[in-house]
Amino acid sequence: MTRPTPQTLDAYAWTSTMTTRWRDNDLFGHVNNAVYYEYIDTAVNRWLLDQGLLDIEKGATVGLVVDSGCAYFAPIVYPDDIIAGLRVGRIGGSSVRYEVGLFRQGSEAAAAQGHFVHVYVDRATHRPVEIPSDWRAALETLRTG
Amino acid sequence: MTRPTPQTLDAYAWTSTMTTRWRDNDLFGHVNNAVYYEYIDTAVNRWLLDQGLLDIEKGATVGLVVDSGCAYFAPIVYPDDIIAGLRVGRIGGSSVRYEVGLFRQGSEAAAAQGHFVHVYVDRATHRPVEIPSDWRAALETLRTG
Amino acid sequence: MTRPTPQTLDAYAWTSTMTTRWRDNDLFGHVNNAVYYEYIDTAVNRWLLDQGLLDIEKGATVGLVVDSGCAYFAPIVYPDDIIAGLRVGRIGGSSVRYEVGLFRQGSEAAAAQGHFVHVYVDRATHRPVEIPSDWRAALETLRTG
Amino acid sequence: MTRPTPQTLDAYAWTSTMTTRWRDNDLFGHVNNAVYYEYIDTAVNRWLLDQGLLDIEKGATVGLVVDSGCAYFAPIVYPDDIIAGLRVGRIGGSSVRYEVGLFRQGSEAAAAQGHFVHVYVDRATHRPVEIPSDWRAALETLRTG
Repeated sequence: MTRPTPQTLDAYAWTSTMTTRWRDNDLFGHVNNAVYYEYIDTAVNRWLLDQGLLDIEKGATVGLVVDSGCAYFAPIVYPDDIIAGLRVGRIGGSSVRYEVGLFRQGSEAAAAQGHFVHVYVDRATHRPVEIPSDWRAALETLRTG
Repeated sequence: MTRPTPQTLDAYAWTSTMTTRWRDNDLFGHVNNAVYYEYIDTAVNRWLLDQGLLDIEKGATVGLVVDSGCAYFAPIVYPDDIIAGLRVGRIGGSSVRYEVGLFRQGSEAAAAQGHFVHVYVDRATHRPVEIPSDWRAALETLRTG
Repeated sequence: MTRPTPQTLDAYAWTSTMTTRWRDNDLFGHVNNAVYYEYIDTAVNRWLLDQGLLDIEKGATVGLVVDSGCAYFAPIVYPDDIIAGLRVGRIGGSSVRYEVGLFRQGSEAAAAQGHFVHVYVDRATHRPVEIPSDWRAALETLRTG
Repeated sequence: MTRPTPQTLDAYAWTSTMTTRWRDNDLFGHVNNAVYYEYIDTAVNRWLLDQGLLDIEKGATVGLVVDSGCAYFAPIVYPDDIIAGLRVGRIGGSSVRYEVGLFRQGSEAAAAQGHFVHVYVDRATHRPVEIPSDWRAALETLRTG
């Protein structure tokens, strides 16, 4: 494993802000490692909803997470607010790698950098589907070079 | 049980805003009932922290929740933002009843109204302690008549 | 508020065992107050699933939680296992009050006693529906006198 | 990324069983991707507690998670019970890589395979500490060749 190094917010194409919760802190007074994935998940789905791509109730296509990971550099602690930066990595035929940097408000370097890979499947059959062209066009705006 | 009726935000003395998460929604597409207590908890502790009353790491006094409850009027759904209104009910010798209204942003009537009762105890012995006078003064500002 | 007193397991009609998680413990080393509702929820839905009453994916009827509450008597701490006792209180035309006692394994007195009220609604319209007779017969087996 | 393939339970040195919760299922009726990390976390800490290595309240050494990851092969769904298999990968001077396979009860192939890397630090200073020899001896029993 080559350990990644913390990036800055300009390494991301889109940002959203989220709040932490008392329950996020574990016994040691830091946000628990699993909770970072709740933030990552929330950032990606928020972008999809804002773009009008994800229709939670009726959409024919849903994204299944097949791989995820996170490198933790510095603790996040409730009651910090968090800025999540989002970009895409590889866009395949039916899969997309989303990359998310989590920043404590006012901090230049990422506290954590995570990713997950969505495979898009038919909601009923769970068979992979080709990413539609309007999704693909929107996803391209999340590239950072 | 007399079912309470939804109140408006001016029934509360202090507000804070929080974000919802993808994971908050359960199978039926609404925020799960347990998650409302994460919001309630977060609002109360945020106020205590903002007031400088709660010192998470070193404070000699901690609040134990001995009773909680919530009435649900209308669903909250990710990605809604939530406004939490806070007030106090009864302030006893070592206990406080906090009351929290949860509002979807832009909605006049509370989506849910909850409460919890904190008993303040010594961090080491867990014996109840008398609420200090500076806490009491701050808590009085959360009364709404 | 009249504070309830801890009951024993024989005050409940059905039990299930569940495990706690590292993340359940909060900063003070006890299971966070909101998490008790995850246990309560899980016990009720487990019973409904075991009875064949709840069909998560296709059932026409879903239960919405309209009221919940919990009294906390003694801390639950990860890695405790928990025994949840379940009974019903009032069964109305379209609503049911479920009562759940949470016991640390090996402990006679409940660590916490909670409840929630489900209103059964049509999945599509969210209009209350009359509790079907097979549900009602099964629910009657959860009475404790 | 080379995608891993599902392993069987005999690829792990220690197992524990855990229960899922209603709240674990997300909108699509599967356990949410972040929740898998709650299971992983719980398995590792359960082993540490069972070995008498981790003293939650007073231990001078705490483990910070610096890296985590998970590959998801098949959905886990509440109310499944889960068997978590545990082994160690690399053991460094102050860090350990824990590897966890998550199996639906009765299933031979892992539903998911995750890991996290703990760096052991002094509870007060958060400086890395050398893994003590009794920890190292216990960790060696989690190797699988």
